Amino acid sequence: MGRPSDAREKLLEAAGRLISERGYTAVGVSEICNAAGVKKGSFYHFFESKRHLVSAVIDSYWEHMAEGLERTLGGDGSPLARLERFFTANANEACRGRDSAGHVCGCPLGNLALELSTQDEVLREQLSEVFGRWTSRLAAVLDEATLAGELQICDPERAAADLVAYLEGRVLFSKLRNDPDSLADIGPRALAFLRSIGDQPQRSSAQ
Amino acid sequence: MGRPSDAREKLLEAAGRLISERGYTAVGVSEICNAAGVKKGSFYHFFESKRHLVSAVIDSYWEHMAEGLERTLGGDGSPLARLERFFTANANEACRGRDSAGHVCGCPLGNLALELSTQDEVLREQLSEVFGRWTSRLAAVLDEATLAGELQICDPERAAADLVAYLEGRVLFSKLRNDPDSLADIGPRALAFLRSIGDQPQRSSAQ
Repeated sequence: MGRPSDAREKLLEAAGRLISERGYTAVGVSEICNAAGVKKGSFYHFFESKRHLVSAVIDSYWEHMAEGLERTLGGDGSPLARLERFFTANANEACRGRDSAGHVCGCPLGNLALELSTQDEVLREQLSEVFGRWTSRLAAVLDEATLAGELQICDPERAAADLVAYLEGRVLFSKLRNDPDSLADIGPRALAFLRSIGDQPQRSSAQ
Repeated sequence: MGRPSDAREKLLEAAGRLISERGYTAVGVSEICNAAGVKKGSFYHFFESKRHLVSAVIDSYWEHMAEGLERTLGGDGSPLARLERFFTANANEACRGRDSAGHVCGCPLGNLALELSTQDEVLREQLSEVFGRWTSRLAAVLDEATLAGELQICDPERAAADLVAYLEGRVLFSKLRNDPDSLADIGPRALAFLRSIGDQPQRSSAQ
């Protein structure tokens, strides 16, 4: 075993990978320790329980995702081009999951949201807050696109929540089909959705 | 214990409810038997394993959903009005989940799809087939709407898959926020999405 800080990082890395592949409930502390090459006693030095570990894993997923958001939604290009880059990057991330784990693992935060929301109020709130930050980052770019005249979005937070919902649903199906290629068209589809929101009447025109 | 067929129904009902609330991995055979008021020996008379039970639960969820699809997507009204009825019914179903279980449980098939897709190839294929049937039923109504001149959808199966993805994503967030009211606008939003698909160019117009 290396320095204590190494052990904590190894536990976080192993737990993040195993939970992403199989879920929170299906993965035990012993398995995480074995995968990390860390003794069980050390686990409880760093984390009071598996529940405390998964909270740190959620933070770690978010750090990774926040970097990805800045790489795609920040930087060069028009707001629309950056939005499309963001969706393409998500499709590519799903492909990488299949290459390394043998199957599409989906969005680790979405997986945990569905698994834990009815079971753990503290983790549910943590996940809800993380998705709120993600949505707000997207909303800021929708606001930029509207200011630049590329879109006409009256309520960027609501439109961003729609986009994240659509993305999570598509990622769910790429996991269900074990087919990352099914996400190839997600950028153009999402942009078409955004354009429709700008034109949308306040209530349905269905009979 | 009543007639053997009663016991099987009771096991299915209890398993369906518990798994919908907490997931497949978190619920054990003993708990299901206790909730059903059925002895463990009887469980193995009807089901070889928990895995075989969950396969029957998926069939049972689908039967319930197929009835709901016919009630909403079939029957009176224009194709668009029936589509909106379908989305409203889904929002109402989420509300009922909170009233009976104390929280929004989400879509039981979507929950299982995310939990099991990387873990069990046979159940993944069963779930994928069920979602395929659901998508095809929706696609038939999109086709009707196009024939009636209400929409212009070139690829109804693809558009229906988009709709189901959007719905599953929205249901995920209503579960994460424990807020069924967040689904109130899903009908108009989904119809706007459908209209945008009809106008969509073959590739993105982003730079």
